[in-house]
Amino acid sequence: MSCSTESDLRDALFSPRSVAIVGQSDDDAKAAGRPLKFLRRIGYAGRVYPINPRRETVLGERAWPALAALPEAPDHAYIVTSTEAAVTAVEECGARGVKVATVLADGFAETGAEGAARETRLREVRANTGIRIVGPSSLGVVDLRTKSMMTANAAFDETDLPVGRIFAASHSGSLIGALLTRGKARGIGFAGLVSVGNEVDLSLGDICEATLDDPGIDGYMLFLETMRHAESLRRFALAAAERGKPVLAYKLGRSAAARELAVSHTGALAGEDDVAGVFLRSCGIARVDTFDALIGGLPLLARVPAAGRSDRKRVGVVTTTAGGATMVVDPLASRGVTIEPASAATLAKIAAAGIEVKPARLIDLTIAGARYDTMKAALDILLAAPEFDLVLVVVGSSARAQPEKTVQPIIDSAGAGKPLAAFLAPEAPRALAMLSKAGVPNFHTPEACADAIAAALARQTPRAMEPRSFKSPGNGGPVLDERAAGALLDRLGIARAPSLALDTAITQAPALPFPYPVAVKVLSAEIAHKTDVGGVVLGVVDGDALIAAIRKISADVAVRKPGAKVARVLVQPMLTGIGEALVGYRVDRDVGSLVMVAAGGVLAEIARDRSLRLAPVDLATARDMIAEVRALTPLAGYRGRPKGDLDALAQAIVALSRLADDATVAEAEINPLIVRPAGNDVVAVDALVKLAEPA
Amino acid sequence: MSCSTESDLRDALFSPRSVAIVGQSDDDAKAAGRPLKFLRRIGYAGRVYPINPRRETVLGERAWPALAALPEAPDHAYIVTSTEAAVTAVEECGARGVKVATVLADGFAETGAEGAARETRLREVRANTGIRIVGPSSLGVVDLRTKSMMTANAAFDETDLPVGRIFAASHSGSLIGALLTRGKARGIGFAGLVSVGNEVDLSLGDICEATLDDPGIDGYMLFLETMRHAESLRRFALAAAERGKPVLAYKLGRSAAARELAVSHTGALAGEDDVAGVFLRSCGIARVDTFDALIGGLPLLARVPAAGRSDRKRVGVVTTTAGGATMVVDPLASRGVTIEPASAATLAKIAAAGIEVKPARLIDLTIAGARYDTMKAALDILLAAPEFDLVLVVVGSSARAQPEKTVQPIIDSAGAGKPLAAFLAPEAPRALAMLSKAGVPNFHTPEACADAIAAALARQTPRAMEPRSFKSPGNGGPVLDERAAGALLDRLGIARAPSLALDTAITQAPALPFPYPVAVKVLSAEIAHKTDVGGVVLGVVDGDALIAAIRKISADVAVRKPGAKVARVLVQPMLTGIGEALVGYRVDRDVGSLVMVAAGGVLAEIARDRSLRLAPVDLATARDMIAEVRALTPLAGYRGRPKGDLDALAQAIVALSRLADDATVAEAEINPLIVRPAGNDVVAVDALVKLAEPA
Repeated sequence: MSCSTESDLRDALFSPRSVAIVGQSDDDAKAAGRPLKFLRRIGYAGRVYPINPRRETVLGERAWPALAALPEAPDHAYIVTSTEAAVTAVEECGARGVKVATVLADGFAETGAEGAARETRLREVRANTGIRIVGPSSLGVVDLRTKSMMTANAAFDETDLPVGRIFAASHSGSLIGALLTRGKARGIGFAGLVSVGNEVDLSLGDICEATLDDPGIDGYMLFLETMRHAESLRRFALAAAERGKPVLAYKLGRSAAARELAVSHTGALAGEDDVAGVFLRSCGIARVDTFDALIGGLPLLARVPAAGRSDRKRVGVVTTTAGGATMVVDPLASRGVTIEPASAATLAKIAAAGIEVKPARLIDLTIAGARYDTMKAALDILLAAPEFDLVLVVVGSSARAQPEKTVQPIIDSAGAGKPLAAFLAPEAPRALAMLSKAGVPNFHTPEACADAIAAALARQTPRAMEPRSFKSPGNGGPVLDERAAGALLDRLGIARAPSLALDTAITQAPALPFPYPVAVKVLSAEIAHKTDVGGVVLGVVDGDALIAAIRKISADVAVRKPGAKVARVLVQPMLTGIGEALVGYRVDRDVGSLVMVAAGGVLAEIARDRSLRLAPVDLATARDMIAEVRALTPLAGYRGRPKGDLDALAQAIVALSRLADDATVAEAEINPLIVRPAGNDVVAVDALVKLAEPA
Repeated sequence: MSCSTESDLRDALFSPRSVAIVGQSDDDAKAAGRPLKFLRRIGYAGRVYPINPRRETVLGERAWPALAALPEAPDHAYIVTSTEAAVTAVEECGARGVKVATVLADGFAETGAEGAARETRLREVRANTGIRIVGPSSLGVVDLRTKSMMTANAAFDETDLPVGRIFAASHSGSLIGALLTRGKARGIGFAGLVSVGNEVDLSLGDICEATLDDPGIDGYMLFLETMRHAESLRRFALAAAERGKPVLAYKLGRSAAARELAVSHTGALAGEDDVAGVFLRSCGIARVDTFDALIGGLPLLARVPAAGRSDRKRVGVVTTTAGGATMVVDPLASRGVTIEPASAATLAKIAAAGIEVKPARLIDLTIAGARYDTMKAALDILLAAPEFDLVLVVVGSSARAQPEKTVQPIIDSAGAGKPLAAFLAPEAPRALAMLSKAGVPNFHTPEACADAIAAALARQTPRAMEPRSFKSPGNGGPVLDERAAGALLDRLGIARAPSLALDTAITQAPALPFPYPVAVKVLSAEIAHKTDVGGVVLGVVDGDALIAAIRKISADVAVRKPGAKVARVLVQPMLTGIGEALVGYRVDRDVGSLVMVAAGGVLAEIARDRSLRLAPVDLATARDMIAEVRALTPLAGYRGRPKGDLDALAQAIVALSRLADDATVAEAEINPLIVRPAGNDVVAVDALVKLAEPA
């Protein structure tokens, strides 16, 4: 009995009429003992079938010997057995007509060939019986409203769990306990939580998608370790955006060390972090970098509408503590948010309200004093001021000692006007609880406050993309030779340097179709990075020098890349511009077609100073990309320098990004793309094109 | 009656026998009403003289009409009057023989000329009477042990204040309340806290220094808004290091926006953030970036000895939640800390203890299970393993549900072996309290945990410096002409390019003492950035071209810098190397003599990719500096490129840094310094030298 509709799936996952716990232990201190204990404590009203072939009873209840012995096929089975037994149990579930099986055991793809074979068996059961599978390595699937709490996570071992309107999904099983308990401490409640495990069948995106039409869910909190199954994540995110349900994500893997851990931990290959960032942004998912911002950020996200490309990043600040406010301003400004000074009109209104402030970038109420009327009036004026997109209020010691004076007015003003976020400098649990209860976004650390504000202001309306962008490139097919690569550039409308291929065996230089000086480069499909092996000589002034350059290249490559076949070199005129860029296209394993721009040269590579987008892009996006690359700044006319043809560069980015429509190309890189002065175009000097693996 | 010794000053500040509250209000809801209320509530045992000329009583106590009317000169007066009255009160305190006056009012240097005049009056009283002054704009001076609690900060309006062994000093007055209350919530107590205000007399460093021999103080927590009075901060920090008392600082101003706020808020000019960072590091002060790491970092700092230059940044990780641990690993790795995998020997010991772990960069106890014996044995093995400098333990849901299983073993193991830091993924107040009570460093957010670990591992043994480095350069004196600048380089032993100065009026090129091609540069003391005004022509091939270049430069400068006198140009041979560097020296207003290295060129400037140290430096430090500049990486032989003469570059840095011994020079910049292949030296092509203002 498979789930024929999305709502069937949702019901089987989150409001099953009956559940089986396969492998339920009699010892509730063990992970395998917890599910039944938790279900009974919370008071799940459906039918529960504990299965344990070795015992008559578990935790005082009748234990069933096997799935086959049950009087009905349960909607959902939580399989808490050992690894090998779990595979068998899923097979039995499939045969018995169980709709969803959630598997706790690990020991699958992350453990190598044997584990991968187990995953294959699970997929076969899924294909043959229609059963849907959560996990393996799932610490559980929980709905706090229906009390369907199928989890082995120890953090659920308590009463008074925080029921609310947020759905949390996590690659890490332990983290659902951290989200639950930290949320509870902050007055934040959950409709449901799921630990998605290895996603052998149902992915994180699939599971979230199944909950989209749940009217009791207002927003999503995601803890991501990998970009695996990005396509379903995107599908879910776009549908969530349509419904006005914000999605907030924390993703591990900013550092290479963390990405390596993700590999060994989950068995998933971790992509590059900026690729993940660009992907999440293109889906309209707000990404935070601090754990506290994940916990506390959704109320703010719900109040800040997603934006298009145009920036709305102007924050007004009102405070009773300049030092405390600056703790938030510092990380905010570092994230590119503008701290906007109040306009003359706003300052005039503040003065007219009898509030004494020094004219500065903060509205500092220190002199005016910590009084209700002062804070209320100042806030109302700021919340109505057109120069701000969001108002940050930072309260000092009075937030703890006298919240009725400086925190109550925040609550009383927050409903009107633009979004507002509050940070309280002292430890002020009572005031934080007041704010949370009233639904006012509030934060316990200055860093989380800044992080959540920046993420909310940066959130974009998602960009719909064709499914073509999710084709996996495999390992890539053959590399095009220079002629074919040149033809591809011609087809895309990207100007390129003239060139002539010469045999390395020649002893006399032929007449060239362009003047000296020239550049000479090794031509070999085996050599992708010519400079690294001594394969490039620049500024060759005449025919004799050309022959000498060919000899030098042959000799250098023989030393640095012994065995590489060096039959030909490419000769090109020396092109000069006022700068260089690198423009690249590739089909990423996780997120699909990407276009990239960086400054050419080794420095840009070392600094990882590049801008990425999902491909294709339009001209405005290409211009944004250029502006994001720090090393291209001089080409915009820095300190009196001549301007480069950035329009032509943007057009080349757009042109290369259109390869997203060409399924045969896996990768293309123009490096360098010579940037000439404004009006004089850009010229590709070298291009590397790799085809997709034949299907 | 002035303080003749350090201990006199300490006593007057923190254990006065008698205090006056000048301007004490009868309304304890007002700031000026709080000091007496707080002193009585905490039970200060000394004599208290509330002074209020307009009332017979305040808060039910006798009010004295004036300082002159008191039966004795109180040791310490807290002046909580309005601004103008405060100046008068300090004068009266001086006349009456009060030892220390702390001033609450603002309206001094931060408000312009009138305020600056008030500060001058305070300094005169200080000079004439010997009274010491805290503030103005001081929210108070508090000793929780002697119960001398002279503060108007509302956060002290409670009983059960956390007494401990930490001394906190803050430029922000509100923040002492935040430190106190957040510390209390984390089980961290204070010996004393001070809000230093504008530091018109006693600086933050002076006040901390006065407490150095207090046996009840183990460490220092600093909240800094400015590097004002860096000399006293350094003196204090070096003396603290000698006594083994760690100093932990949070400094605002990572962003330009925050630095601007500091200017308007405190009246102090804010220097560059990396200068402050280098200064703090050279003082042996650990700097954190997150507020929670400031609150909770000292216990860890106390367990990690300060290091010399050599790196000890290898952290071992044991966890029951790979996802939770990676939350700490990610920011740790981003801060340059190495997550060290366990050695084969360590893994063998873990296996021998019967603990099943997958070989990975984390010791992940998920499979082994959340048991006391497992955690204890794993921790003991890691704490004894030579490959780690510090052990991080991250506990998942069991930290909340069953701390006796996974948190108690941390407490039982923490005493032995190397430093240990704990992060608990769920909300786990009971476990955190257990850890804090046992003195085990613990953190509530993954970011603070990583921040504190990185800061502790990066802390250096301070470097003693001569006081010469604190001479203020004023606005700088005259700029040396090229001949004098060249002579200075010769004296320092830095090789420079030959050159010839020519009059711009010449119509025929003279014979040159070096071959063409040459570079031609405008020579004018009015033009510091030659390229920006079209003042440089490179690759001039012969005499005619030289004359043309002189004409072009004259014409360009006339357009871009009208009015600048262009009488001469400098001609130099075109020198080629394999890279360029910029080496600079300057006397910073706050921190004294600095030496800097960056890659030459506009890109390095845009990226602010530079390394700084206090000057002078030795060769090893100069090598560290070169390694810190990303844009110089290619010169170390990146991907098969030729190596530059980095030894010679390091020697040039050392040589220029010796200007710290030359009081006549305010600033010197060699740009570019051509770096030739290894063994071929570096050559200065251009140098700008600015003399100090005549004394």
